[in-house]
Amino acid sequence: MHILIIGAAGMVGRKLAAKLSADGKLGGKPISELTLVDVVTPEAPDGFTGKVNAKEADLSAPGEAESLVAAQPDVIFHLAAIVSGEAELDFEKGYRINLDGTRYLFDAIRLANGVDGYRPRVVFTSSIAVVGAPLPYPIPDDYHTTPLTSYGTQKAICELLLSDYSRRGFFDGIAIRLPTICIRPGKPNKAASGFFSNILREPLVGKEAILPVAEDVRHWHTSPRSAVGFLIHGATIDLEKVGPRRALSMPGVSATVGEQIEALRRAAGDKAVALIRREPDEAIIKMVTGWAPGFEATRAKALGFTAETSFDEIIRVHIEDELGGEL
Amino acid sequence: MHILIIGAAGMVGRKLAAKLSADGKLGGKPISELTLVDVVTPEAPDGFTGKVNAKEADLSAPGEAESLVAAQPDVIFHLAAIVSGEAELDFEKGYRINLDGTRYLFDAIRLANGVDGYRPRVVFTSSIAVVGAPLPYPIPDDYHTTPLTSYGTQKAICELLLSDYSRRGFFDGIAIRLPTICIRPGKPNKAASGFFSNILREPLVGKEAILPVAEDVRHWHTSPRSAVGFLIHGATIDLEKVGPRRALSMPGVSATVGEQIEALRRAAGDKAVALIRREPDEAIIKMVTGWAPGFEATRAKALGFTAETSFDEIIRVHIEDELGGEL
Repeated sequence: MHILIIGAAGMVGRKLAAKLSADGKLGGKPISELTLVDVVTPEAPDGFTGKVNAKEADLSAPGEAESLVAAQPDVIFHLAAIVSGEAELDFEKGYRINLDGTRYLFDAIRLANGVDGYRPRVVFTSSIAVVGAPLPYPIPDDYHTTPLTSYGTQKAICELLLSDYSRRGFFDGIAIRLPTICIRPGKPNKAASGFFSNILREPLVGKEAILPVAEDVRHWHTSPRSAVGFLIHGATIDLEKVGPRRALSMPGVSATVGEQIEALRRAAGDKAVALIRREPDEAIIKMVTGWAPGFEATRAKALGFTAETSFDEIIRVHIEDELGGEL
Repeated sequence: MHILIIGAAGMVGRKLAAKLSADGKLGGKPISELTLVDVVTPEAPDGFTGKVNAKEADLSAPGEAESLVAAQPDVIFHLAAIVSGEAELDFEKGYRINLDGTRYLFDAIRLANGVDGYRPRVVFTSSIAVVGAPLPYPIPDDYHTTPLTSYGTQKAICELLLSDYSRRGFFDGIAIRLPTICIRPGKPNKAASGFFSNILREPLVGKEAILPVAEDVRHWHTSPRSAVGFLIHGATIDLEKVGPRRALSMPGVSATVGEQIEALRRAAGDKAVALIRREPDEAIIKMVTGWAPGFEATRAKALGFTAETSFDEIIRVHIEDELGGEL
């Protein structure tokens, strides 16, 4: 089978490609070809024995979607997006990349479907940013999407398009609403949500980290490993069981910053916790008050999507996947 | 003040223009100019003393949105859409008119806003088709939008755009989710929902009407008069009170077909009821099972939107507005 990953150079895209490469199959079928696309040329995963096409492309550029669809991949993972902060700063770019790019892809598939019945599985990464404060806790599956960012708006619109195009039979789509991914590997970055990862990842290796908010801030998390698991499950699940409501809030761990820190203490001791420096940042404090505290994810759990159930487990996964299994 | 109505030749558009013309003012400010636009040239309302521009235009055609916005109307009522059945039959036309046309309008305003701060009130007619079965009764304000038609999808997307463009300060938008309008004046039409009106309007004037569904079918209704009232209230309401969630489910009357018929009996007697002929239509029966039975509309009511509270009242409004006040 031929798999296309759009947004393959990002953190989740790379881990997804690596996992597919390691598995060598998806849903029991051998993977013969991987097409990896991003705005920078993605790296081919180690050890994959099939054909790899790594390509630099911007989905929002004319003709790119048609060109990607022309090869008729069996499964399309669409992960490409500009992040929330950038979509807020550059209104037109956000709508062009996150909305129009996705619609070009969906329409290219629709037109191919009209020609010869081509009907791939499309797995789209949505986000908990589709909801916006004030929010209940936990947020039920049938809660309305009232995003408070342009990024969240674009994701909510793509969810609607995906369900409609799927209902019309143009493709078999599923939208995976990812929790915030924690612990993100790599260096601290300036994303407003970066501290959720920084305050664990850095102290785990003896480095300082800055905490800009209070310890009672509650948020919704899942590990990179679980995120990849969601996408793979979404690519293989029987969509008859999902029905016409194709956007699913994924399971995760709801935790306060204080609970994250206590899990760090259990994993790495007081010395690690002492590396967290409190530096309140009013801008970040204001932003996080609107963020999702946690979801019921009843449907996703019933459909077999699984995630960690504690921050101890999230830290253990990080140690296994990023630190060679021990501190 | 200058008011633009896009979709002014439709039933609600004509009644809105007539009401604005009769009032001569909106929110206490005199109306000096009315621009009426539709795909067929709208008629000017009787008795309006200001300037009327009646124009044939297709909002989805290049340059039309910019041309309408160039005159900088203070209030824009955007009612133009192709109906559910047509949007389902012609996928591309539905997206072009109902989604792209609306986005062109919103973007034309955004670009004008960027030039000189132009920031009109935009009142957009959405629909209860943004929700889809299975549905609770009554449907709460925070229920998710999972449309089962392309029309409903297009309306839900426009609601999201309107809230985002309003949040960014490009215009002051409000989306009015209209119930099914009953009793629609005019002749019986082939819309699947037409029978809700036909079974009242026709017997009230001594004519036969066909009922294609069972009497226990429950649906959500408001009169044309109330629909116009919603739009005018939406054009004048303090949007600070509405907040960032700009799509509002309007109040209405939830009634079964049987309850409609009993109201007809109270208004016009057994002889009128005897004019309803049962002709079950499997296609319509299947469709109506997915339709909204009724909404809580808690927010809209708290914000001062008002509607009829019984079908007796809806029938009385029809007799007053369409039949000269008596049978």
